[in-house]
Amino acid sequence: MNILECFKDYLKQNLTKCKSYHPYFEEALNYMLLAGGKHFRAQLLLGVVNAVDKSKFNDAMAVAMALEMIHSYSLIHDDLPSMDNADFRRGIPTIHKKYDEVTAILVGDALNSDAFLRIANANLSDEIKVKCVRILAHNAGSAGMVLGQALDCFFEKTTLELDKLEFLHLRKTGALIAASLELGAIIAGLSDEKAKELYKIGLKIGLAFQIQDDLIDATATSEEAGKPVNHDEFKNSFVNLIGVERSKAYKEKIIAQISENLQNYDENLVNLISNLIEKYLKG
Amino acid sequence: MNILECFKDYLKQNLTKCKSYHPYFEEALNYMLLAGGKHFRAQLLLGVVNAVDKSKFNDAMAVAMALEMIHSYSLIHDDLPSMDNADFRRGIPTIHKKYDEVTAILVGDALNSDAFLRIANANLSDEIKVKCVRILAHNAGSAGMVLGQALDCFFEKTTLELDKLEFLHLRKTGALIAASLELGAIIAGLSDEKAKELYKIGLKIGLAFQIQDDLIDATATSEEAGKPVNHDEFKNSFVNLIGVERSKAYKEKIIAQISENLQNYDENLVNLISNLIEKYLKG
Repeated sequence: MNILECFKDYLKQNLTKCKSYHPYFEEALNYMLLAGGKHFRAQLLLGVVNAVDKSKFNDAMAVAMALEMIHSYSLIHDDLPSMDNADFRRGIPTIHKKYDEVTAILVGDALNSDAFLRIANANLSDEIKVKCVRILAHNAGSAGMVLGQALDCFFEKTTLELDKLEFLHLRKTGALIAASLELGAIIAGLSDEKAKELYKIGLKIGLAFQIQDDLIDATATSEEAGKPVNHDEFKNSFVNLIGVERSKAYKEKIIAQISENLQNYDENLVNLISNLIEKYLKG
Repeated sequence: MNILECFKDYLKQNLTKCKSYHPYFEEALNYMLLAGGKHFRAQLLLGVVNAVDKSKFNDAMAVAMALEMIHSYSLIHDDLPSMDNADFRRGIPTIHKKYDEVTAILVGDALNSDAFLRIANANLSDEIKVKCVRILAHNAGSAGMVLGQALDCFFEKTTLELDKLEFLHLRKTGALIAASLELGAIIAGLSDEKAKELYKIGLKIGLAFQIQDDLIDATATSEEAGKPVNHDEFKNSFVNLIGVERSKAYKEKIIAQISENLQNYDENLVNLISNLIEKYLKG
């Protein structure tokens, strides 16, 4: 099995159990996690662990799961009627459409807290677990992803300058993607300094990932994207600000920078990141 | 300064900083935490630490703060239009009224993740921090508070039997109150077994606290309660199910059980809990 298949297998075997007399809360908790998606963040984390120290691969699964739980909660809340008001995600109805809005809010809340429980219960040393909690919480919360989303929502109808747009997306998308590499590095036993270097490379990957997402949103059909695409609507996207061609060129420039930053890295790690870039950030 | 004053002082000195070009997200993050409230959970945690090992009191503050951040996020989300649709809380407008719904959702999300960052950054051993993360995440997430809220919302218009009502409130209110005592015990260096015993007593305190809250909701004015009170509306409350007098008697019975459970405990600890019961659960 490749890394993605290993993770999907782990996910199915380790769903959240939540027994009660609620008719569907347990099902709703696992619904979006089971709906597929690229698991790009889990792949980054597990890829780093696999490249640096294969013996830690199985124990890293719990933290990869935590990461995907945080990512899933953010999608569930972003899709809410008061935010993006999206009916579909990953090719299936969003939680507030399939169940109701209360369930969507509460499933997101539960996944957010439960993610940290997964780390606390992982088969890792206390020192590593505390570092993982710190990295994930810092990048998910008010210093990272949530701040990015707050900026995106507040300035939805305002054209931002390029540096503000980057500030926003480095948090909204970049922070958690960068955290994936840092978490992998810490679990694999790399130094805090090396982990932080990878984090910085991860921010660039996150930015390129966001530009690619904007390009897909601007050019793909909703079937291809698995979610509604809004070709006409104004959003603070790179494509809306600088156009398709300049966005593509900007993305290529960032990818070139990433390759340069990776020059002195271990071959396994370079291959991993190059392959993910090839698969998800090209075209 | 007493414990409550110490905590309020700490809270004001340790607000979340969140610098960006968002006009009010940082302010909104701290708005409900600064709005007062009883800080009952922080008082329980800090009270246990103070009673068992005063030398840990200052270092426990960060965890008490995390607990109040989780409690505050839950109030912010419970008040949302799709849930309780409440305009006031702690005597001031709720976040979605003062700012907007997006901000209320995102502030709640940020407080949820940020709470775990506070623990990760606390001045405690890694072993204690991992235990604190585990206790808080377990009781806040899908095994605890959120499940209780999901049940409360789903069965809003259905009369539940008493055992189901207890199951619900043991999670919605009891879990986090019980976690407060367990967290205090762990930080103060008590054994896991002693901490778990206190947790069980905490569940009873939580149940008595909920019944008291229902009694206030049924009998107080909204000015006294600092939030809207819904004398007429059907809710799955103890008062609606068994009436005011039987609810009072049930609460007294639980309080008597708590006193009995505390018999072999250290005098400081007994005094702490007795005083909090006297102050918040009587009348």
